[in-house]
Amino acid sequence: MTRFLVLYRQPADVDAFERHYLDVHVPLAKQLPGLRRYAISRSSVVVRGGERYYLVAELDWDDMESLQRDFASDLGRETAKDMENLEALSPGVQSMILELEDV
Amino acid sequence: MTRFLVLYRQPADVDAFERHYLDVHVPLAKQLPGLRRYAISRSSVVVRGGERYYLVAELDWDDMESLQRDFASDLGRETAKDMENLEALSPGVQSMILELEDV
Repeated sequence: MTRFLVLYRQPADVDAFERHYLDVHVPLAKQLPGLRRYAISRSSVVVRGGERYYLVAELDWDDMESLQRDFASDLGRETAKDMENLEALSPGVQSMILELEDV
Repeated sequence: MTRFLVLYRQPADVDAFERHYLDVHVPLAKQLPGLRRYAISRSSVVVRGGERYYLVAELDWDDMESLQRDFASDLGRETAKDMENLEALSPGVQSMILELEDV
């Protein structure tokens, strides 16, 4: 399974971040045809190391090919471009693609 | 669902890290009775922000109560103590507890 993991730092303006995230970003991303699951955690409790994240988002695709197809589409590019708005509201946001396997 | 997420930085000695992780840490953690899934990603591709992680681990429990019960057990404390060995091999490791919900 291929996961797009996004780690958002505490926004200065929580209301503006939440509004943009829920009203613009999530509806955009949820239209991506290969997206299998979109889950978020607002409760991030640090156990070891570093500062807590305000929000952690997980977006799952079946495999790297379908993720790359969606990311390269017009809608994917629009969603990626919208990350610039979120980064302005939550500087230091990190995102990465993971390929997970059970151990 | 309650997830324990661990983000490991690039170890200086990859072989020593892998040996300890696979031979000691994973077998310890997998004995925790409430653990529902243990998955790792060694392929972490940075899309935005920050340095890549060497390994990302996800350990899932049904809920916060069962995670806390396992963490508080003798085996849980032994597993947490073993994180000190992993941190020596991969300084800057971060771990956190997430409570995920679909959006």
